Amino acid sequence: MRNVKLNVSYEGTAYSGFQTQPHRNTIQDKLEEAITALTGRTVKVTGSGRTDAGVHARAQIVNFETDSKIPIERWCLAMNARLPNDIVVYAAEEVPFDFHARRSAKRKTYRYAIRYGRLPDLFTRRTTLHHPTPLNKEAMRQALAVLEGEHDFTSFCSIHSSVESHVRTIFETRLETLVDDGMEDGQAGVIHLYITGNGFLYNMVRIIVGTLIEIGEGKRSPAEMQHILDAQDRMAAGPTAEPHGLMLWDVVY
Amino acid sequence: MRNVKLNVSYEGTAYSGFQTQPHRNTIQDKLEEAITALTGRTVKVTGSGRTDAGVHARAQIVNFETDSKIPIERWCLAMNARLPNDIVVYAAEEVPFDFHARRSAKRKTYRYAIRYGRLPDLFTRRTTLHHPTPLNKEAMRQALAVLEGEHDFTSFCSIHSSVESHVRTIFETRLETLVDDGMEDGQAGVIHLYITGNGFLYNMVRIIVGTLIEIGEGKRSPAEMQHILDAQDRMAAGPTAEPHGLMLWDVVY
Repeated sequence: MRNVKLNVSYEGTAYSGFQTQPHRNTIQDKLEEAITALTGRTVKVTGSGRTDAGVHARAQIVNFETDSKIPIERWCLAMNARLPNDIVVYAAEEVPFDFHARRSAKRKTYRYAIRYGRLPDLFTRRTTLHHPTPLNKEAMRQALAVLEGEHDFTSFCSIHSSVESHVRTIFETRLETLVDDGMEDGQAGVIHLYITGNGFLYNMVRIIVGTLIEIGEGKRSPAEMQHILDAQDRMAAGPTAEPHGLMLWDVVY
Repeated sequence: MRNVKLNVSYEGTAYSGFQTQPHRNTIQDKLEEAITALTGRTVKVTGSGRTDAGVHARAQIVNFETDSKIPIERWCLAMNARLPNDIVVYAAEEVPFDFHARRSAKRKTYRYAIRYGRLPDLFTRRTTLHHPTPLNKEAMRQALAVLEGEHDFTSFCSIHSSVESHVRTIFETRLETLVDDGMEDGQAGVIHLYITGNGFLYNMVRIIVGTLIEIGEGKRSPAEMQHILDAQDRMAAGPTAEPHGLMLWDVVY
């Protein structure tokens, strides 16, 4: 047996999320079907974490055990020949048996992309949230920084979460602005929010972003972020931002 | 009657090009159907030029005459409510009756996007050509510059073209390189080629790009570009590059 690690990108638009489901339209299902087609054996793939329906991954990491003799350098192209064109395997390597894509992960980074302007940008619409009015980036940046460190993130966790502890550590946050080369010169902009942590609760990044948008709109002040965190109450935070702006950006082991 | 000018962006992936065809799956058909739904009258839209099947537009310009009393500032949102989400009207204005989207155009710019690297980039795959090996950008830049000025572009014109004169003027060319934030760090890159001219022959930009790729691969030298141009023979140039990397970038009147 071997333990194989794959680096996978996907556009989540057409899928019901990462984790397998009965109707089998998930990223995990597509990966398992491709591996089975390659090796002739059923297999269970472990991901670094779930992504919700419509969420994308630049770098999802998965691992699985196989007794296949296929040389490791052939896995990448062999998998891509069997996967739909919105899922790509970028790298494959053989790893020790104690490597576990979820449990071994030390840091994960998510990116959330927002374009503000009167109209959506056609060419990034699948991976970027369109927000119709300007956003105060400096207020959003201040509020985002409040979340750095170890905190109880209950306020930013879906009430449907079943995990025991809501304590997580955010190592780093970053708000970048991009030049927009769409048609609304000077009236539109693109914001990329990066959040790196040791783990994330259910809907955590999307609720953080939903709250930051209210702060960017001026509906709440950046100073409120501390109160929302302290409240340890989902009702204190803003809405859950739409899934399609979110991308699993990087996983470090 | 009024003469209305619209600025339109579209992702061409799902369409059989700009110009109307019997099966009605073109950008022109979708625009005309939306205008008819709005005004209750059939209409004929004129574009600044045709784009082939699969080619995109950041800024296509169209005009049409209408007796509709709808205020000009309402056209944009009213059209977008009736168009599929891969076609967006960015601006509408009333123009003099002598404005003609094709005949009044002074300069047009096309952009062709190429990503080189082992694997395609998932998130730009609909608008960027994937080329599996590195390209010599400096050689491509030199060869591209040879095309500036007034020339007979027969070598870069589809043999299916029916226009009389193959003389066109290229005002400006530009090769830009972008930072690639995909998964193949250091092994991949993105090239954007911009070509501005007073008009373009059938498949002209795509044949120029197909030739530049052969130069970038080292199959031909940059000095050959002058010989290809002088030959006035389609057989002298390289293949027609795929449509999906091409985008009508800008039209100036």
